[in-house]
Amino acid sequence: MWVYLNNKFLQDDKAHLSIFNRGFLYGDGIFETIRIYNGHPAFLNRHLKRLQQSCQLLDLNLPIPEPKWDSLLRELATLNEQGHTLIRITISRGVGSLGPHLTGCTTPTIVIFTRPLPQFTKEQQEQGVTLTIVNTRRQPSSAIPAQIKSLNYLNNILAKQEAMKSHAFDGLMLNINGHIAECTTSNIFFVKNQRLHTPSLQCGILPGITREIVMELAQAEGIVVQEGTYPPKDLLDADECFLTNTGFGVLPVSKIDSKQLKSGKQGTETQIIQLLYESHIAKSC
Amino acid sequence: MWVYLNNKFLQDDKAHLSIFNRGFLYGDGIFETIRIYNGHPAFLNRHLKRLQQSCQLLDLNLPIPEPKWDSLLRELATLNEQGHTLIRITISRGVGSLGPHLTGCTTPTIVIFTRPLPQFTKEQQEQGVTLTIVNTRRQPSSAIPAQIKSLNYLNNILAKQEAMKSHAFDGLMLNINGHIAECTTSNIFFVKNQRLHTPSLQCGILPGITREIVMELAQAEGIVVQEGTYPPKDLLDADECFLTNTGFGVLPVSKIDSKQLKSGKQGTETQIIQLLYESHIAKSC
Repeated sequence: MWVYLNNKFLQDDKAHLSIFNRGFLYGDGIFETIRIYNGHPAFLNRHLKRLQQSCQLLDLNLPIPEPKWDSLLRELATLNEQGHTLIRITISRGVGSLGPHLTGCTTPTIVIFTRPLPQFTKEQQEQGVTLTIVNTRRQPSSAIPAQIKSLNYLNNILAKQEAMKSHAFDGLMLNINGHIAECTTSNIFFVKNQRLHTPSLQCGILPGITREIVMELAQAEGIVVQEGTYPPKDLLDADECFLTNTGFGVLPVSKIDSKQLKSGKQGTETQIIQLLYESHIAKSC
Repeated sequence: MWVYLNNKFLQDDKAHLSIFNRGFLYGDGIFETIRIYNGHPAFLNRHLKRLQQSCQLLDLNLPIPEPKWDSLLRELATLNEQGHTLIRITISRGVGSLGPHLTGCTTPTIVIFTRPLPQFTKEQQEQGVTLTIVNTRRQPSSAIPAQIKSLNYLNNILAKQEAMKSHAFDGLMLNINGHIAECTTSNIFFVKNQRLHTPSLQCGILPGITREIVMELAQAEGIVVQEGTYPPKDLLDADECFLTNTGFGVLPVSKIDSKQLKSGKQGTETQIIQLLYESHIAKSC
């Protein structure tokens, strides 16, 4: 597998980092995951905008100028002969000072690699996946702004571990106020009376790009989308529920703890949103 | 400089990690910093106890058995000809799955290196350092348990960046309830009417080992130590203030934002605590 590391394409087993890289020592950096669809980086401008914002919030230099990203990502996908894949861009603060201060951190590290699209069983695709509401709370923006898609992923890992122990596909985190926030790698929507509901950005969630596109597509179709602060009860009273992320797009949820939801062929609104999203991505690429 | 990486002593420029190491991709791991005093790892049992606890909370295997650590750390300090230094142990989940789930993560990565003791100007040593109360809040234990000394350090880095912009030595973080928590790499104490006060562990602070020792030494000397939940006002009304960490031990604080404190030769209690701590470490090693 080819990867890109600091200006060079290399075989993955030759791509090494110093043990002093601040990405390793402190999780000091950011990442972005982009879907490659028919060889094209999907919604690249939106991803680059978020990448730039993450960098700015951490005072990190984005070392590749905006116009170069498209050809760089296409080249990597082509080298790996992958027309449909995911690409992860990781930018860390590189090697510099030890400790929280940033003296001497002049050269960020850039790592780009392809990774397979997530795989689901036929049942998961048709009927949806299961969630559990976990005890781990989404870290608040007052500690780390939620717009930073950072390398600090332990909050998500702890939530996922709880979900695994409950034999659920994923863990749904509440924020510190007890409102629905997000899953470990996805945003959440629920449907009640044909309206879509999703936690607002003020709930301390990552501003997901698939979330943003789904909201735009639904609104263009005349479907009402309400962003808000929702207690778990509202979700458990819902008719349907689905998750959004770059890797899997729109994924139906069949069950949240013991609550069964309309899903698969019964989840009409979810199916509409899935079709709208897949057709939009096909048109865009 | 010699470092230790997964069972081997290597020169630091030959110690490399895979770009897929989960320490780099997700900050998925923990660390511990130990002071080497006259060639001896100081308070090693306490550090190992916290290391084991951090590992347990993350379902991480600690790959080196307890009795081997002492000679391993001494050997590294000797190789680097450093009788007085700091050693950082980093344990990450190694290379495994991509994403928050832990499938295939069987072999942790261990990195151990020496790093210089922190340096202070004569003025800082005698008069103390300055703090600013930052906007970044200490991440709550409901998101990541504070007992885990983890590689997720962005919360601290953001607080330090704020402090740097205010030309302060360090940033003091409040917790999400607005109570005093800790600085970016140290615990905080303040003195009022000859009594020591320090945030309780329930404030979501790291259970610092120097903090623990200082409390024990003070109590043995008949000095009252009160752990509690303190609003910033209590601190700003204090007579003296000091910080504790493994690297610098006990460090006086001269000023918090615009509030001047008794420090240096004026800070009687701080001086007593400094002497007690330095004499204890000398006796222990």
